[in-house]
Amino acid sequence: MSDIAELTSHVRAFARDRDWEQFHTPKNLAMALAGEVGELLAELQWLTPEQSAQVMADPRLGPRVRAEIGDVTVYLVRLADVLGIDLVQAATDKLAEAGRRYTVEAARGRAAKISDA
Amino acid sequence: MSDIAELTSHVRAFARDRDWEQFHTPKNLAMALAGEVGELLAELQWLTPEQSAQVMADPRLGPRVRAEIGDVTVYLVRLADVLGIDLVQAATDKLAEAGRRYTVEAARGRAAKISDA
Amino acid sequence: MSDIAELTSHVRAFARDRDWEQFHTPKNLAMALAGEVGELLAELQWLTPEQSAQVMADPRLGPRVRAEIGDVTVYLVRLADVLGIDLVQAATDKLAEAGRRYTVEAARGRAAKISDA
Amino acid sequence: MSDIAELTSHVRAFARDRDWEQFHTPKNLAMALAGEVGELLAELQWLTPEQSAQVMADPRLGPRVRAEIGDVTVYLVRLADVLGIDLVQAATDKLAEAGRRYTVEAARGRAAKISDA
Repeated sequence: MSDIAELTSHVRAFARDRDWEQFHTPKNLAMALAGEVGELLAELQWLTPEQSAQVMADPRLGPRVRAEIGDVTVYLVRLADVLGIDLVQAATDKLAEAGRRYTVEAARGRAAKISDA
Repeated sequence: MSDIAELTSHVRAFARDRDWEQFHTPKNLAMALAGEVGELLAELQWLTPEQSAQVMADPRLGPRVRAEIGDVTVYLVRLADVLGIDLVQAATDKLAEAGRRYTVEAARGRAAKISDA
Repeated sequence: MSDIAELTSHVRAFARDRDWEQFHTPKNLAMALAGEVGELLAELQWLTPEQSAQVMADPRLGPRVRAEIGDVTVYLVRLADVLGIDLVQAATDKLAEAGRRYTVEAARGRAAKISDA
Repeated sequence: MSDIAELTSHVRAFARDRDWEQFHTPKNLAMALAGEVGELLAELQWLTPEQSAQVMADPRLGPRVRAEIGDVTVYLVRLADVLGIDLVQAATDKLAEAGRRYTVEAARGRAAKISDA
């Protein structure tokens, strides 16, 4: 089993064991995902870009950032499971689409959102 | 190679080919992740919980939700790569921690944030 | 002085007194605003729509929601001040634009984002 | 009437005229607010802090940032109205609390979240 499939199965069992499936609508899970992303932003908000690039070397901040990334991943995996979406395939498709719109020649050195594709 | 490792490598090459590494600080990527999560919320905001549970069956909304999930995943994978964090391990660790705090007996039927663990 | 102008002036003095102007770039303040909105979402995420409509009557949740709304307002007011934007005028202009796009006849009973205008 | 009271009344009429009150639960409005904040982040995500401080002078980006600030304000005002919260008072109270926790002496030059208060 792939690592994402295994994690998905793990999170699913976690919710089922606690009878939390009743709360896990896509709407609620998207809110929970956004709440966790908000906590991640809060860890980085006052850092300079340079400090943010070194954040994992900070013994206090590094573990907090890692924990927030973990929380975000848990809810994203759970949301995709409830929606019946293959996370990795959805990302791969979006990247292919972005690659057609942002060709290497046109995009080099000019940032753009993947989602603009 | 695992599916997440492969996707990570794919996204990394995408950024490198376009010389976008200069923009990909953790701070900027966290903002981009939050922006994509905002777009996901926007697709679900006026739906009832019941409608949100059926959203993938809607021929107009389903593909849009899937695309937003794809965008969120791309930026989360890229952020974890830049930070040097193993996404799946970070999520697994957080889930274990949540399991100790929200035991099945205490948590059954009472929703709580994973991050409260 | 209007209530928003007074609050703006109050928040500005708060930042200046603590020498926090160095941290208050629009980028950082937008992240802080998003972090506070994430905390607000976290208070509402597991509630049904009906429960959310009664949240202020809950002696535990009501004050928490009010505090999050206060935090969001502080950062929004500060961000607008730093950007030199008149919050109320910007909102009024956007509402006028939305009114032209979502005429009463066309929009009645069909939700749409203000920002789609 | 204060400027916020007038704007609140304006947004309330906008919703009532379109029979949108049915969609305007606190839960839905908080999601809409977060969606708009996501759009604001997206405008600033690839800018350096210095570029973000000059964003209003950019003829393309300035009006977009102002429009996003307007959208955020509309939903925040609407959410506070539906919750029965006085935005300005909630912010003032939170600022007073933050002032007690972050005294000028202790906080000078050290950024902290208002919400940590």
